Amino acid sequence: MSPERSSIPFGEFKIDALLVSALPNIRYLSGFTGDHALLLVSPESLTLFTDPRFTIQASEECTCAVKTVTKGPLDTAAVAQIGRNRWKRIGFEASRMTYDVYLRIKTSLPLGATLKPVGSVIEKLRMIKSPEEVARIRKSVLTNSRAFAKAIPSMRTGISESAIAAEVEYQMRRFGAEKSAFDTIVAFGARSALPHARPTSGRLGNDELVLIDMGSCQDGYMSDMTRVLFHGRPSPRVRTMYNAVAKAQLAALDAVRAGVTAGHVDRQARKILEAEGLGKEFVHSTGHGLGLEIHEPPRLGKRDKTRLEAGMVITIEPGAYIRGFGGIRIEDTVLVTKTGCEILTPTSKELMLL
Amino acid sequence: MSPERSSIPFGEFKIDALLVSALPNIRYLSGFTGDHALLLVSPESLTLFTDPRFTIQASEECTCAVKTVTKGPLDTAAVAQIGRNRWKRIGFEASRMTYDVYLRIKTSLPLGATLKPVGSVIEKLRMIKSPEEVARIRKSVLTNSRAFAKAIPSMRTGISESAIAAEVEYQMRRFGAEKSAFDTIVAFGARSALPHARPTSGRLGNDELVLIDMGSCQDGYMSDMTRVLFHGRPSPRVRTMYNAVAKAQLAALDAVRAGVTAGHVDRQARKILEAEGLGKEFVHSTGHGLGLEIHEPPRLGKRDKTRLEAGMVITIEPGAYIRGFGGIRIEDTVLVTKTGCEILTPTSKELMLL
Repeated sequence: MSPERSSIPFGEFKIDALLVSALPNIRYLSGFTGDHALLLVSPESLTLFTDPRFTIQASEECTCAVKTVTKGPLDTAAVAQIGRNRWKRIGFEASRMTYDVYLRIKTSLPLGATLKPVGSVIEKLRMIKSPEEVARIRKSVLTNSRAFAKAIPSMRTGISESAIAAEVEYQMRRFGAEKSAFDTIVAFGARSALPHARPTSGRLGNDELVLIDMGSCQDGYMSDMTRVLFHGRPSPRVRTMYNAVAKAQLAALDAVRAGVTAGHVDRQARKILEAEGLGKEFVHSTGHGLGLEIHEPPRLGKRDKTRLEAGMVITIEPGAYIRGFGGIRIEDTVLVTKTGCEILTPTSKELMLL
Repeated sequence: MSPERSSIPFGEFKIDALLVSALPNIRYLSGFTGDHALLLVSPESLTLFTDPRFTIQASEECTCAVKTVTKGPLDTAAVAQIGRNRWKRIGFEASRMTYDVYLRIKTSLPLGATLKPVGSVIEKLRMIKSPEEVARIRKSVLTNSRAFAKAIPSMRTGISESAIAAEVEYQMRRFGAEKSAFDTIVAFGARSALPHARPTSGRLGNDELVLIDMGSCQDGYMSDMTRVLFHGRPSPRVRTMYNAVAKAQLAALDAVRAGVTAGHVDRQARKILEAEGLGKEFVHSTGHGLGLEIHEPPRLGKRDKTRLEAGMVITIEPGAYIRGFGGIRIEDTVLVTKTGCEILTPTSKELMLL
């Protein structure tokens, strides 16, 4: 039995088996990396259901039982297995299963069997990374920073936001990433005030901000970094805003250590930005966990009470956004330790001038 | 009122309003391209709920009412609006909403209001593309084929699967795509027998199959193409298998026209492959719709009864996969017309030799 499966609190939830439908959770428990599967876990067994497109792949990736479903939905095959095992109380991932699948399973379960919504059980296990997972994240973070460094010379007058995005994503793959962890954000000038800007064909002019938010996915594990550069000579207003966000980021980093709440870390960044008159311009939370997904628990928002633990990997990324002017965000990927944190991202946080 | 909204059958479903939670559906109805939103649609109104990260973007992209939710889940704000409007029967997308959100809304609705699961209403509207949507798909398809052509010279002895994937994705962006429509598949030799192979660092040797399945996303619209190349001199077995799949693909293309069922098209491809002794090796359906998403209705499986209509855009992609030997798949993106179909993909379907 894998250490992961042995940590599922079947007793606490009073369930005989757990139906896992979120693909990253399935990968975590079974090793399967395909994109259509369902996993049925009991204290004694682990069965993966997938379709014939993935038969060969599943047999290569998984040590657990694999059932290839050739007809009908995967959940129907899982329900049959539930019947054969006479399991009665079946946990399901309420935040991952759609209503129609829930309803189909509920109405097809054998007599006496019931569905029981459970919270983010597997996501909670996944919050604490194993040394092997941390090693993979380290690799992903390094790839990401190398790709960023390699792409800097391309950032010259006239290049478009999407050309820079293409360049950084190309470089991350050259350095070993499977793909980008999310759609790379590249935003010039006032567009940097859109925290989730999509790169356009807009071209880099003089005296413009360049905000780049990029992440790599390597061996399945994500990294996440935001840096702001300036093409030309930054105005005092840009410098002041940059320094305020940098100070907020350092304050949050300083606060990270096992035992403090996620909300505490967020508030340290928020306090600084409020003191700098940028409280209202900080429109998102300070960070989030990452691993097999780019956004995982914990969330580092104002009111989040999750206590940080050694082995969590999170982002620290305060920002400030002024409509019509621009935005600044500085983001590192960090590993929480007993006494503080290790900043995994090696890229400098000085305001880089292009 | 947009033509899209006027097509929602509120009366048929006996609903006063529809809660749209799938992002592509939200984009289709409102123009919003951000990644966190909920849309509440009634015959008289359209309201987008999003969070402060997207305030500026939503105001730029949407003509409908936009509410920025600063605290709590978006659905809570939507429920408040339902109360203010005294709407009683609220449709929701059962195949798109997770169980926990369903439950939260259900338990917080005002007295007398009820939730009603509706099928893929918006997805059904989206099946028939407007001329403007077809124009965007055409562009995406062309970009994709140009990127493929541009990447061919890089396919030489020693290049890795992931380097080719990086190259084609880089090229599609250079030709105007925002990103790839899905993780590009590049598989050499026996790995091509995995219909959803992930590119590895494995290097191209002599006398090997090269399967490439790639799609672009441009202006939000997807394209999808698979081609198989051969590095060296293909054996008679490879040639025979290639020709069988090519014949099946042409048979399916021949069958496409407004009025026939999706299943009919699938069966034409299947018949050919069965006659060629490759029936069991064709482990997936013949194709799928595409547009704002890479997989949309209709599905072209054996038993699918959806009747094709002019204006649908679908893939035609039969394949055959032999473990330990390799796989062949040939895929075009096509537009269904009254009398047949227009193959949008301009790339040659001869077995290309490298």
